[in-house]
This record gives sequence, C-alpha cells and structure tokens, in this order.
Amino acid sequence: MRVLVIDIGGSSIKLLATGQTERTRLPSSSDLTPDEMVSRVKEAGGDWTYDVVSIGYPGPVEGNAILVEPKNLGDGWVGFDFGRALGRPVKIVNDAAMQAIGSYQGDEMLFLGLGTGLGSALIAHGALQPLELAHLPYNKGRTYEDYLGKNGLKKRGKKKWREKVFEIVPAFHAAFQVDYVVLGGGNAKLLDELPPHTRRGGNALAFEGGFRLWDPDSGVRVD
Amino acid sequence: MRVLVIDIGGSSIKLLATGQTERTRLPSSSDLTPDEMVSRVKEAGGDWTYDVVSIGYPGPVEGNAILVEPKNLGDGWVGFDFGRALGRPVKIVNDAAMQAIGSYQGDEMLFLGLGTGLGSALIAHGALQPLELAHLPYNKGRTYEDYLGKNGLKKRGKKKWREKVFEIVPAFHAAFQVDYVVLGGGNAKLLDELPPHTRRGGNALAFEGGFRLWDPDSGVRVD
Repeated sequence: MRVLVIDIGGSSIKLLATGQTERTRLPSSSDLTPDEMVSRVKEAGGDWTYDVVSIGYPGPVEGNAILVEPKNLGDGWVGFDFGRALGRPVKIVNDAAMQAIGSYQGDEMLFLGLGTGLGSALIAHGALQPLELAHLPYNKGRTYEDYLGKNGLKKRGKKKWREKVFEIVPAFHAAFQVDYVVLGGGNAKLLDELPPHTRRGGNALAFEGGFRLWDPDSGVRVD
Repeated sequence: MRVLVIDIGGSSIKLLATGQTERTRLPSSSDLTPDEMVSRVKEAGGDWTYDVVSIGYPGPVEGNAILVEPKNLGDGWVGFDFGRALGRPVKIVNDAAMQAIGSYQGDEMLFLGLGTGLGSALIAHGALQPLELAHLPYNKGRTYEDYLGKNGLKKRGKKKWREKVFEIVPAFHAAFQVDYVVLGGGNAKLLDELPPHTRRGGNALAFEGGFRLWDPDSGVRVD
C-alpha cells in the first residue's frame, strides 16, 4: 500500500510518498483553505501513485475529524471532507501526534515538538494520546510555548532557550512517568546536548509517522 | 474473590474488604515502616476473610513495585515484599491511580486528587497512565501542588484555593485532550460548584479502585 503523507506545518506544507527519497515542499499562507491545499497537492503530485493519504494537521484532531480551525491558516478546515477531495482514504492526526508516531521506539514515550509552537503527544500502553501542553501556564502568566516555541527562542536567544529546555523537559519527563522523551520539530537540532532520558527526533520522522498510520503492526493504536 | 483494599493516605491508613460497609481507619505516622503497617493491618483485620490485597501507595509505582520511598512515612518501602508479609497476592498502584480507577466512568479521563498533595492519573484507551503533575512548575517557581494541595489551601484560604481550581483544572482538561476530569481526594467536597467538563469524586472511590484492580472486566488495564 502506497501512502502519500502531507505534513501541514507552521510555515509550509511538506509531502512525501512511499518510495520517494526527497520530500516536496509547498508554500503555505495565512489564508490557506483546505481546498487550496488539496489543489496544490494534486498539482505537485500529479503523476505520483498512492493508494491512501495521511495528514498531519496543526491543531486538535479526534476520530479523524479536525476539531478546531487552524491558528495560522485560513478557514474551512473543520468538517472538510478530505477523502472526497483527494479521492483516497485519508487518516488525519495532529501534526505533533504524527511525528510522535514516527519517533516511537517502544515503551512509554512523551513527544515534544520544538518548532513554531510546542507540539506534544504521549504514546503509552500501545496507544496514542494527543496532548496540547503548549498553553499550560508556566510562569508569570506565560505558557510553556511562550518559552519553548519560536517566539521564545527569538526573544531570549539560543542560550536561554536551551536553558529552558533543560529545565522544562526533565519536569515533563517526571510528570508523565514515561521511559523517555523525544524532542522533535525543527529546532531540536539546535540542542548540541540533550537532557537526561531524552532522544533527538526531527521533522523527517513526521513522514515515518504518516506511513505507520497505515501499518497495522506499528505498535501504536490511534483511536 | 474477596479483596482487602489498603489506602495509604497522607495522614492515615484506610481499609475496606469485600462485603464491608464501613471503612476502618488506622493511624499513620511519619516514621511508619511497611512492617509496622502490615502488623497494624493484620491486627485490625484479624478475623476478616480476604483472598487478595490491593494497596494504594502515596508515591510512584511501576509494575507492582514501589519506585521511591514515601515523603511522609518511614523507610524500607522500596523492595518490600508485601505478598510475603500479607500472605496473599498483592497489587500495588499509586494512591491517586487507585482512586482514578475507582472513579472511571469510561472514555478518556484525567483524575486529579485534591488532598494533602495533588494526585494525578490518566485513563485513556483502556489503560492507566500514572502521572506526577504535582511538581510541575506553575508560577514563580512554585508548583501546581503548592497551589492546589493542603498547604496552598491553608495559606491562601478556601476562596483563593477555589479560584485556582477553576483556573488550573480547565487548563489541564485542555492540555490532556480528555473527555472529562474527575476531582477526587479529601478536598473535592470543598467545591460547591465544579469547573466545566468536571465530575466530583471522593476518597471512598479509592476502595472501588482497589476492588476493580482484581476485576478483569473493569475496562482499565494496569501494566
């Protein structure tokens, strides 16, 4: 079964299909509608062959349905029929959840995506539990995302951002009682060293997650 | 199968066995050892009949093994052989986890125990995930437990404590992407009103959890 994976990120749409070695990057925009996204995908992947599609969406998803309109894109995403528009069976999950699935190496794992925002997901007892830790209050009315996301990195600089990673990630590791934490997202590469019980992931693993969504032996149930 | 449930709380040890209508309360102490606890239990329950035992322990537990010595009791708990001491098969879980199992009403649930400390556990996808949210930093270097636990209640008073409950619980509900939050522990009764998506639990449900640990149809897997 050949899978087309669509990773809708904070700043671009990335595509990879089974058998390809290089991802395709499409521009995104703050008024991007799902119709427009599907058009761009069909245009870019016109001569590709795929049987099913996986989509990583930058917001909460449950039971293959988008729950909330995206923060940084256009409208019309909630209720959009991707299966019909793409003409294939589609599985949609939260983007951090998709990368979490791709990063999973067994046992109990907390995934934190260090990107534009702070993505999060838990995989435990063989199942995916999407999370939204980004907006939990952390300090002085600010949130974890304010410190660990792109804005926090820009505002305080790399050194202070790394210090916050080393402060917050171990706190989450203890709070979730997991075996390890995977740090993914675009900024994971800015960490020369990693906190204890942590492994480095990366955005490329989002595609692995998209492939695993259709693999019944992946070891991760997605309800 | 008759179960004896032992709930080791912050200030006392509570017992209930299958068929009993009233719990038995035994004193605890800051130097309580597991040997001493077992003695007191055997003395109190001398003529009770039970086949198996469930223990709710005030600290992290994994795979039926206590991971950390208790904060407010004596030493010797890690590695103690409860099965041998009690002469019965024993299942041990974190005390908040046991109350969570007893409070569970299906779907995805976050449990928060409002007691001496702040207990927490997640039940999702049919499985228990123990948590330790108490010590996550919340504000100005203080933790969630500093605000929602007994000390926070004493220091700031009931009105401010309730305000914090109404601030923090919805934040956790969103962060964990669960269907509902159960507020248990001894101080849940201080809430006349409940935040949205919240249900009231209580310490009595710890015993229900202890019974459910031995029920293969409970709907909650404990790894």
